[in-house]
Amino acid sequence: MNSFFGEIDPPQRLLMGPGPINVHPRVLRTMGADMLGQFDPEMTDYMNQTMALYRQVFMTGNRWTFLIDGSARAGIEAALTSLIEPGAKVLLIRSGRFGMLLGEIAERLGAEIASIDLEWGQVASLEQIESALAEHRPAVFAAIHGDTSTTTAQPLEGVGALCRKYGALSYVDATATLGGMAVRTDEWGIDIVSAGLQKCMGGPPGSAPITVSDRAAEFIFSRRKVESGIRRDDIHDGTRPFIRSNYFDLAMIMDYWSEKRLNHHTEATSMLYAARECARIALEEGLENRFARHEAAGRAMTDGLRALGLTLYGQDAYRMTNVTGVYVPEGVDGERVRTRMREEYQIEIGTAFGPLAGKIWRIGAMGYNAEPHKIRLTLAALGEILATV
Amino acid sequence: MNSFFGEIDPPQRLLMGPGPINVHPRVLRTMGADMLGQFDPEMTDYMNQTMALYRQVFMTGNRWTFLIDGSARAGIEAALTSLIEPGAKVLLIRSGRFGMLLGEIAERLGAEIASIDLEWGQVASLEQIESALAEHRPAVFAAIHGDTSTTTAQPLEGVGALCRKYGALSYVDATATLGGMAVRTDEWGIDIVSAGLQKCMGGPPGSAPITVSDRAAEFIFSRRKVESGIRRDDIHDGTRPFIRSNYFDLAMIMDYWSEKRLNHHTEATSMLYAARECARIALEEGLENRFARHEAAGRAMTDGLRALGLTLYGQDAYRMTNVTGVYVPEGVDGERVRTRMREEYQIEIGTAFGPLAGKIWRIGAMGYNAEPHKIRLTLAALGEILATV
Repeated sequence: MNSFFGEIDPPQRLLMGPGPINVHPRVLRTMGADMLGQFDPEMTDYMNQTMALYRQVFMTGNRWTFLIDGSARAGIEAALTSLIEPGAKVLLIRSGRFGMLLGEIAERLGAEIASIDLEWGQVASLEQIESALAEHRPAVFAAIHGDTSTTTAQPLEGVGALCRKYGALSYVDATATLGGMAVRTDEWGIDIVSAGLQKCMGGPPGSAPITVSDRAAEFIFSRRKVESGIRRDDIHDGTRPFIRSNYFDLAMIMDYWSEKRLNHHTEATSMLYAARECARIALEEGLENRFARHEAAGRAMTDGLRALGLTLYGQDAYRMTNVTGVYVPEGVDGERVRTRMREEYQIEIGTAFGPLAGKIWRIGAMGYNAEPHKIRLTLAALGEILATV
Repeated sequence: MNSFFGEIDPPQRLLMGPGPINVHPRVLRTMGADMLGQFDPEMTDYMNQTMALYRQVFMTGNRWTFLIDGSARAGIEAALTSLIEPGAKVLLIRSGRFGMLLGEIAERLGAEIASIDLEWGQVASLEQIESALAEHRPAVFAAIHGDTSTTTAQPLEGVGALCRKYGALSYVDATATLGGMAVRTDEWGIDIVSAGLQKCMGGPPGSAPITVSDRAAEFIFSRRKVESGIRRDDIHDGTRPFIRSNYFDLAMIMDYWSEKRLNHHTEATSMLYAARECARIALEEGLENRFARHEAAGRAMTDGLRALGLTLYGQDAYRMTNVTGVYVPEGVDGERVRTRMREEYQIEIGTAFGPLAGKIWRIGAMGYNAEPHKIRLTLAALGEILATV
């Protein structure tokens, strides 16, 4: 019998990059559970429980809190596709790769784009945001909470209120922060927040938790279009232009996650199991404890890197706690160091994108990896290698 | 410590509906493997191996054979979004729910839709297809191979040649047949075929294998648009209108799966492990053996249902081998029987959609469940219940 490449058997590697990271063993075990029919009562119970758990994780009372089946980017696109009508004005903060991704997706959707364009790694002040909202009067405001490309976190306190004042619906991508830094959806007043599992939630990539405020849901339902073939009555019963994607039509997806159980995609059962287990682990630890653990890990990392004589990238005041940018020292081949870290110590650290490519490493400590011993091991290995380059 | 709903612990249920079905234990175990960095050499090796395995599964030499991260519907939307330019004419066969879904997605993409509209459960002849191609001269032809809503398989032999003759790119959804009935991509000459894991491949939902011909890839690359933020040079270097989705932009996804490794989404690692293991299992069994096993299972199911005095839905000549439609007998409450099957025997059988809702059950025997004993158990349980309604 041909072995067809043999079994999956990855090396036991410590993943200290910007994600994906090592998955909590409980989450890996949970994915070994067998399937259920998608409308079996046990399955819909698991779906409802997942909604309840992620309300807590997102610190929100939003009824519409569920999963998008796809990577974190699928969550971003589902939110933007559902919020942005063709020709609508969108205001973005662009100060890193993922802010630029928001613009790229909005452009594909035919939006008119206004932006607060900053140097990579800078953050926008509340005054800058208000002034741009007042000037552009966008239908939608979108920003990244923690942009791993720059290891920088955009403060969002007060942003939701400003968006409401100027009549914009707001979207925030919290892929890299959810479960590691506080994502205070309701306190910030953000309408839609989406994320992924593969960073501080300690899960695998491939599922995007999302939460949608009632006012955003009302807007999205006004764009509702339902497939013929599953209902007899209507096609497009919304009052506004329908959403240009079926897969990312949040109105259909909310109908699927509601008691209507209107058939849409087939829920990715194993990924739902994983997402649910990630949330259970995070909530058992306690969110505030978890944020404190990531903060302590981040401090240990920054202190340790400085003790190695390295220079950190970015500003201490806006540093993400779970991933740290650090300059590759003058004369050192950053990629060679990364290769040696992987080959000699089975530790992965991250490279960089765009204007930072080749200039910084990005070293993460997220979820199951935000632990003192894993930071010590990473720093020790890096120190050994830098001593011999 | 709050238990937050307890562990995932689904009942041990035999899933004999139209999918998802019970996952092969080897696939479940494989998903317990930990993550790799997405550009680590072991990860890109697994990606390349997955491409090689699915070339065999799709019976194709297509270089561009890979996975879309999302449910089977994500594969459909990725194909159609990448093939259909706004205003392009699309020819569809609509004779069941999933054919209607093709139209619904095409409508959202702004296509001009022409269709061969048939009663649910009918198939189009080659003559009908040629006549519609000649009349409408579509840019894209799209059809469903096996539509589980009607348990009917559309013959596709010769369709690719017709599409080429009339200048159309062709797409086929083989979600419900791949790994169970022959999907002869190259022999049929279909440009893009996509599928899912949760039917005859014996895996979980949430990953969509797809294969793209060189001529379709060339067309799609002519719509290429690359994110700024990851490259310094260009934005939209294609000669044709760019694709209206970032997540489903097959040009970017092909760049990600190529030696360029252009960063796009973060590959859903656990689902990739699952997809790879599904293909290994299918190829170890041998595709023709596997088709024969599904055919024998389908025959055992149809014979057994008839022996229970039930009337089958659809035509024997075009019946899918892996899911069988059967009329709910006059005076019997079909949903009550389904509930009793589940509660008394832990066996799931399927309900139906649209014009067939309440009229037929859909009973599957797919992948790991296309086994004589599982069919016997299902028939025995159904017989016991029907004897006592």
